[in-house]
Amino acid sequence: MATLAEINQFMRQAFPNAQFTIVAAGNKSATIRRRANEQDIRPGGTVSGPTLMALADTALYVAIHATIGITPDAVTSNMNINFLRRPVADKELIAVCELLKVGRSLAVGEVTLYSDGNDDPVAHVVGTYALPRAAQST
Amino acid sequence: MATLAEINQFMRQAFPNAQFTIVAAGNKSATIRRRANEQDIRPGGTVSGPTLMALADTALYVAIHATIGITPDAVTSNMNINFLRRPVADKELIAVCELLKVGRSLAVGEVTLYSDGNDDPVAHVVGTYALPRAAQST
Amino acid sequence: MATLAEINQFMRQAFPNAQFTIVAAGNKSATIRRRANEQDIRPGGTVSGPTLMALADTALYVAIHATIGITPDAVTSNMNINFLRRPVADKELIAVCELLKVGRSLAVGEVTLYSDGNDDPVAHVVGTYALPRAAQST
Amino acid sequence: MATLAEINQFMRQAFPNAQFTIVAAGNKSATIRRRANEQDIRPGGTVSGPTLMALADTALYVAIHATIGITPDAVTSNMNINFLRRPVADKELIAVCELLKVGRSLAVGEVTLYSDGNDDPVAHVVGTYALPRAAQST
Repeated sequence: MATLAEINQFMRQAFPNAQFTIVAAGNKSATIRRRANEQDIRPGGTVSGPTLMALADTALYVAIHATIGITPDAVTSNMNINFLRRPVADKELIAVCELLKVGRSLAVGEVTLYSDGNDDPVAHVVGTYALPRAAQST
Repeated sequence: MATLAEINQFMRQAFPNAQFTIVAAGNKSATIRRRANEQDIRPGGTVSGPTLMALADTALYVAIHATIGITPDAVTSNMNINFLRRPVADKELIAVCELLKVGRSLAVGEVTLYSDGNDDPVAHVVGTYALPRAAQST
Repeated sequence: MATLAEINQFMRQAFPNAQFTIVAAGNKSATIRRRANEQDIRPGGTVSGPTLMALADTALYVAIHATIGITPDAVTSNMNINFLRRPVADKELIAVCELLKVGRSLAVGEVTLYSDGNDDPVAHVVGTYALPRAAQST
Repeated sequence: MATLAEINQFMRQAFPNAQFTIVAAGNKSATIRRRANEQDIRPGGTVSGPTLMALADTALYVAIHATIGITPDAVTSNMNINFLRRPVADKELIAVCELLKVGRSLAVGEVTLYSDGNDDPVAHVVGTYALPRAAQST
């Protein structure tokens, strides 16, 4: 397990330009948020799909750190995303992640994405990370 | 919307050999359960993957009926399943479905599958049904 | 690597009631076929989704045996299926599998499913198998 | 159907900052390529997952235009991506898309992603676009 402070420190080093904020991170869970940049906005005032996928991917990564300790070498092996509703461009995006399984070689989790202030999710992601061999003992 | 009695009647006609029981069905949700048959069991005392996929597919179908009325012509267009843990062969399987979106032409939902008596899910499914044009007005 | 004869022998022992025929199996590929049973048929003369998923799953398993040797303990970890067209009930189903990656711990492949005699696929599957640790040296 | 010139004109207007090049676009197919930017590179000299997802998404969009005419309102409803090998940071990325189905309300296609000069794919995507009602008659 890693504390929120440890995760924040690691993520800031690994992604110095990243713009998300970790709201919470605990055993098998994480919540992060970020505001969409100008370059993330699509015509019509919505947020691009890859922006949503990137945020979900980060939420999974943070939840893994929070559960088994900082694991830089965990890599995404599969992501499945369903786009449900148009996000609102000028609202923050919120990603709520719950890990469904943390095994020896794979971690599987789901992420529900929201526009701040709206209870209906804008997208839903299920993702798998491949864990390095020694990860569980970290 | 359809009541549990209406859904049961429809499902029994459409799938006369089906062996699941609808535990609950309401707005955007359904829970169903069934015991694995001998032909569903794999060597090692576990349940076959297609048995799990079929149960998840049925749970989505039931949740759609419960939400927009009996919709025989709704058809599965996509299913994504992650197998998480080995189900126990002699326990009932339980499928808990929540619809994430019910739009004009698509319904998207997730299903978490359990072996009775264990809180850790055995599989997780996200599925999409294509809805016939007039479905929303039923 | 395993020969077609070795794979046939293994599959017949592991799945004595199975009804598919292995048409071809080689490095990173396999083609199998089967006729739909009465219990696989859905109202309207089509084939059930789980029947298609099961056939795709088997094609992946056969292709893995053909590529790295008989690997009984390989297990499906993820399957994503898109249903494209209604299969024809009284035609054989054909599953053509190509492995996209065979790594140390995961094998990923795609399967295209056809009704015999029609070039337009009825479904498309991408699946991942988790490989046991010693599999690569078999 | 739309010609390559028409698609290029539309894409340049819709995505004025986009950096991909359409190599080919025809009936149910498209090939596009782009060089990874500095901001797409991850530590270790590889390309970020969202960069790959974005390129695959664009390839699907271009193939749809090439097949049914310019369709600005087509929107991604589902994407499933498997990451297979690390892309090489200083090579162009190539996305080869083939549509598996173009129906009245949905188009489904697969995209295989390569690092230029290597025949082993770095990622594989299956995606679904929801088509606006009048799209087929365009």
